[in-house]
Amino acid sequence: MSTVLKPLADRVLVESAPAEEKTASGIIIPDTAKEKPLKGTVVAAGPGKTDEPMTVKVGDSVIYGQYSGTEIKLDGKTYLIMRESDIYGIVEG
Amino acid sequence: MSTVLKPLADRVLVESAPAEEKTASGIIIPDTAKEKPLKGTVVAAGPGKTDEPMTVKVGDSVIYGQYSGTEIKLDGKTYLIMRESDIYGIVEG
Amino acid sequence: MSTVLKPLADRVLVESAPAEEKTASGIIIPDTAKEKPLKGTVVAAGPGKTDEPMTVKVGDSVIYGQYSGTEIKLDGKTYLIMRESDIYGIVEG
Amino acid sequence: MSTVLKPLADRVLVESAPAEEKTASGIIIPDTAKEKPLKGTVVAAGPGKTDEPMTVKVGDSVIYGQYSGTEIKLDGKTYLIMRESDIYGIVEG
Amino acid sequence: MSTVLKPLADRVLVESAPAEEKTASGIIIPDTAKEKPLKGTVVAAGPGKTDEPMTVKVGDSVIYGQYSGTEIKLDGKTYLIMRESDIYGIVEG
Amino acid sequence: MSTVLKPLADRVLVESAPAEEKTASGIIIPDTAKEKPLKGTVVAAGPGKTDEPMTVKVGDSVIYGQYSGTEIKLDGKTYLIMRESDIYGIVEG
Amino acid sequence: MSTVLKPLADRVLVESAPAEEKTASGIIIPDTAKEKPLKGTVVAAGPGKTDEPMTVKVGDSVIYGQYSGTEIKLDGKTYLIMRESDIYGIVEG
Repeated sequence: MSTVLKPLADRVLVESAPAEEKTASGIIIPDTAKEKPLKGTVVAAGPGKTDEPMTVKVGDSVIYGQYSGTEIKLDGKTYLIMRESDIYGIVEG
Repeated sequence: MSTVLKPLADRVLVESAPAEEKTASGIIIPDTAKEKPLKGTVVAAGPGKTDEPMTVKVGDSVIYGQYSGTEIKLDGKTYLIMRESDIYGIVEG
Repeated sequence: MSTVLKPLADRVLVESAPAEEKTASGIIIPDTAKEKPLKGTVVAAGPGKTDEPMTVKVGDSVIYGQYSGTEIKLDGKTYLIMRESDIYGIVEG
Repeated sequence: MSTVLKPLADRVLVESAPAEEKTASGIIIPDTAKEKPLKGTVVAAGPGKTDEPMTVKVGDSVIYGQYSGTEIKLDGKTYLIMRESDIYGIVEG
Repeated sequence: MSTVLKPLADRVLVESAPAEEKTASGIIIPDTAKEKPLKGTVVAAGPGKTDEPMTVKVGDSVIYGQYSGTEIKLDGKTYLIMRESDIYGIVEG
Repeated sequence: MSTVLKPLADRVLVESAPAEEKTASGIIIPDTAKEKPLKGTVVAAGPGKTDEPMTVKVGDSVIYGQYSGTEIKLDGKTYLIMRESDIYGIVEG
Repeated sequence: MSTVLKPLADRVLVESAPAEEKTASGIIIPDTAKEKPLKGTVVAAGPGKTDEPMTVKVGDSVIYGQYSGTEIKLDGKTYLIMRESDIYGIVEG
């Protein structure tokens, strides 16, 4: 990504994982869920808010709510910009 | 569970108890209740929020509201991700 | 009660008083009241929130709002789980 | 009052003044007022909230809003339980 | 005023100015205003809230919003009880 | 202005600029704007709120939202009384 | 810009980027986005709020929400005045 977006405060730039990758990693989102959680990778993270340091870091695989964030295109690729509080957790393994 | 989800802040990953187990442990949820509380086991817990340490820990049997949390599937098993404040209490005995 | 529920934070487990007991103790709830207060006994109380210790303790006879709390059955008996701020006061005498 | 209700936090137990007493004390509530204030006597007061001590004390004659508080009967007499912030002021003279 | 009302916290007891007095002092409230401000005199003021001392004092001529406060009659005279934050400013000259 | 209004807390008394003056100073408010900002001059400013000193001072030319403040007439002239947070910025040059 | 607007507190004056410039810099806003983010340049920034210093500075290229801010014309050119919290991030490269 030659164009860089530095998120402000507690915002995080996330690249959504394609549907295939989800199955491979063992994460399956049930169709019956009221709000479908999604998986993605942190591409950039803000410095956090005053007295609230950030937990996620670039490269983290994260799960977030279906309606979280705002879509944005950088160099032709779509990302999501959201607040860290919209992220449920970090996936490992 | 080979895939691990580390919840952020005050979030908790809960495995819902099957209907049979509820009767065995003496917990019966009344059908007439306005909001039906449910029982489950804490599978993972976040580090807590700033100045608010967590009370529940992995392995705790907990009671939570019927509409609490968001469903998520890890390795084909369904879990709930919720905030600790959505948990009413810890069941013992 | 062989099954024990330890309430989290400022939550309180209350056993509602039967209708007969209310008259005996001198507490009568007027039918015309907009929100009918109810009487019960504290069965378990949480540790309180950060910087807000609990006032009620196990055994206290308390008055609370008609729509306070969530019903839960432990060993076949119905209880209410509510926040201490839903309790109006402690009855004595 | 043989049955005693100890209000929690910033709650106050108030005995409403009968209509006659209002005229005698010089307080007349205008019929045209949008929200009609009422007069009563403090029968019991809570200890206050953290860092917010109580101002009213037992025996104070107080003015409060028409829709303040919840009705409760103790030993057959009707009282109101409300927060101190629902009280406008203390009447003297 | 033989009957005295001591306002609680940040409440202020205000005697509304009659319509004649407004013109004399140079204050005219435009008819076209969305919310018509009114003028009155502070008759009694509470001690203020924790860490927020009061600015207005007894005798101050004040301007406040048309829908501010609650009407109350003391010794047959109508007053308004409102919070200091409902007062726009103090009139001088 | 012989009649003086001393605004309380973070309130500001503003004299709206006539339509002609706006063009001369280079400020033109677009007709298509959702909320049309307006220009005026600070005539009086309150002392600020606890721990929040005021930024604007008497004589400042300010821009504020179309629906900000309440109209008031002093000595036959119309002013606006608003909170400093309703002011977008100070115009210079 | 001969006329200068000094934003108050955490407000920022932004000059929207024309549509052409967006493509050149690699930022493309997807048409399907629920809320379309926009790009612009910071022309002036306030001093920040108490205990919350500003992050953006004059000259920064920023991304913000489609409905953020209020339009204003200075010397015939249209700008947006918004709060820093309405800005998603700073674009570099």
